[in-house]
Amino acid sequence: MTLKIALLPGDGVGPEVLAQAVKCLKAVEETFNQHFIFKEAPVGAIAIEKTGTPLPDATLTLCKESDAVLFGAIGDPKYDNDPDAKVRPEQGLLQLRKELGLFANIRPVLSHPTLLDKSPLKKKVINGTDFVIYRELTGGIYFGEKKLNPEGTVASDLCEYSENEISRIAHLAFKAAKGRKKKLTLVDKANVLESSRLWRKVVTKIGESYPEVALDFLFVDNAAMQIILNPKQFDVILTENMFGDIISDEGSVIGGSIGLLASASVGEENALFEPIHGSYPQAKGKDIANPIASILSVAMLLEHFGLAEEAWAVKKAVDKSLKKGIVTPDLNENSQYGTNQVGDFIAHNI
Amino acid sequence: MTLKIALLPGDGVGPEVLAQAVKCLKAVEETFNQHFIFKEAPVGAIAIEKTGTPLPDATLTLCKESDAVLFGAIGDPKYDNDPDAKVRPEQGLLQLRKELGLFANIRPVLSHPTLLDKSPLKKKVINGTDFVIYRELTGGIYFGEKKLNPEGTVASDLCEYSENEISRIAHLAFKAAKGRKKKLTLVDKANVLESSRLWRKVVTKIGESYPEVALDFLFVDNAAMQIILNPKQFDVILTENMFGDIISDEGSVIGGSIGLLASASVGEENALFEPIHGSYPQAKGKDIANPIASILSVAMLLEHFGLAEEAWAVKKAVDKSLKKGIVTPDLNENSQYGTNQVGDFIAHNI
Ligand SMILES: CC(C)[C@H](C(=O)O)[C@@H](O)C(=O)O
Ligand SMILES: CC(C)[C@H](C(=O)O)[C@@H](O)C(=O)O
Repeated sequence: MTLKIALLPGDGVGPEVLAQAVKCLKAVEETFNQHFIFKEAPVGAIAIEKTGTPLPDATLTLCKESDAVLFGAIGDPKYDNDPDAKVRPEQGLLQLRKELGLFANIRPVLSHPTLLDKSPLKKKVINGTDFVIYRELTGGIYFGEKKLNPEGTVASDLCEYSENEISRIAHLAFKAAKGRKKKLTLVDKANVLESSRLWRKVVTKIGESYPEVALDFLFVDNAAMQIILNPKQFDVILTENMFGDIISDEGSVIGGSIGLLASASVGEENALFEPIHGSYPQAKGKDIANPIASILSVAMLLEHFGLAEEAWAVKKAVDKSLKKGIVTPDLNENSQYGTNQVGDFIAHNI
Repeated sequence: MTLKIALLPGDGVGPEVLAQAVKCLKAVEETFNQHFIFKEAPVGAIAIEKTGTPLPDATLTLCKESDAVLFGAIGDPKYDNDPDAKVRPEQGLLQLRKELGLFANIRPVLSHPTLLDKSPLKKKVINGTDFVIYRELTGGIYFGEKKLNPEGTVASDLCEYSENEISRIAHLAFKAAKGRKKKLTLVDKANVLESSRLWRKVVTKIGESYPEVALDFLFVDNAAMQIILNPKQFDVILTENMFGDIISDEGSVIGGSIGLLASASVGEENALFEPIHGSYPQAKGKDIANPIASILSVAMLLEHFGLAEEAWAVKKAVDKSLKKGIVTPDLNENSQYGTNQVGDFIAHNI
């Protein structure tokens, strides 16, 4: 198989971790006789510096022409505390999601046996956790109309959802549940929000076509508790954009390190793979960022294209690095290994 | 001091836990020579059944004429899964907050030394946690315009904030921080939302008048992680309505039981005190609901009116019940004590 892969390293530690992911893809090429064509393009703060915009046209075109996008990270603190900034790195990622139609963000949450002690949660609470979050990614308050009155004293964001936006991701989530533990939990705030009531209505209706999947509902405030109190109760969680942003980051602490979690963002025609951690600017250039999340996003990419054996080889190699303690300092304070060494070890073991 | 207190038991276990809170107020009357005048009124699902509306006019009038409102709980599952329900119990609480102008919801989060083992979080992570959340309560997406198109296929909710809505609660939060550990964290999503950027701007400006308070910012997704990873880093958290709903329920697991957490909702002229747990319908009438959150909301009420000694006596009595193990089954599986007995014990010890 030949795949055209767009590489978007982005900001902060993005380039460093992405480089390790690419090493692993090259190892897959050698070992499994697959062929990947890489092309790189700027996005985020780095793209603003170079071109004035966080998503240059050439970058978007490259992504559209590729089979998949491998993404690093985005964001720079210099824009965060400037409420008047006209362009922001994050706009690049949001626009990319929208333009590529990546309506479903898929984030697996697993407890790693070798890392149970790293979690702030008790072992007995997290041991055996295995769920996946389906977060709607191109609608809701992220993309609704934004307003600021001319005096700058009243600001608003619109959270809007259509039946179609809900049903396309709901079908994906139900299908996933069917192939897993057959349980789907819709997280919403239907006791307050009109948009949540539409979610509940549409998802309930679609659920009738998946009689083998048990459907239940949780208000988002309760979900934020349940994810910590008893994460093992979940199989597939389906939710809208903003709630998904919050609870999937919350869920990331279960695994012991956010440096381990990858995500896939998929649409009808395109797919993007990225670590869920951000640009982590404090670590930039220090060779300490954990490359595993980025490498596991490669595994998700391979799975997406049906390359199950290849994906499995990548995951096995990651497991080996965890078991052998060939890990970055976030997983072991005394570790002597840097981003590059961990990447090399994993690539060599594919 | 004579205080007129409106009692709104509401739904589910509300009446049971509120009855214990009233016992404690009566004990305070006897011991400290204070005087409380109680009047009760319906709200929520029970009010819908009786009058067709979740907040009858008579209830609202009573609350307005009282010095404080003591609230039980609200909500009934029968409305939750009916997207077409015209009236909902929760509307009663939301309308009450709005009509009474209760713009600030204040929720302390503490780790109880006797309950460290009950938390799903590791002892070393939570031991010593002591922060308070200031959640804006009468604005944002809860109260913005809600729309559903005639076909029922597109729904929306508007999240709107004005400078004034932000600044009045920001002042309260900065004052609280000044009297505590002098740190204030604004939780927002300023990298995406226009309303969050207004929050950041207004709060930054107000911060200049509180030079002794260190101000920092966290995106809500990161905050959802940090609250579990390292809750001790927080002192005062300030945030908008929806984010506050989510992270304060998340924070509630730190203390070992949501059955321990009280909250105060205050405005210019009125104040309401309630446990943060909901109506817990499964436990209704079983004498198993934990009354401590409701009793601690009494302590917050007393503090609000400057009755520090009285508030302290209530908290001491609660501590005693925790230390002696006179607690409901949520805190100790083998406990033989019911809601009433725990209430009696605490009231007797005031
Ligand atoms: C960077 C930011 C805009 C983004 C989001 O909020 O979606 C990030 O937090 C994520 O979850 O991918
Ligand atoms: C009952 C519900 C409307 C309410 C809210 O979301 O504000 C509750 O969750 C709370 O936090 O007091």
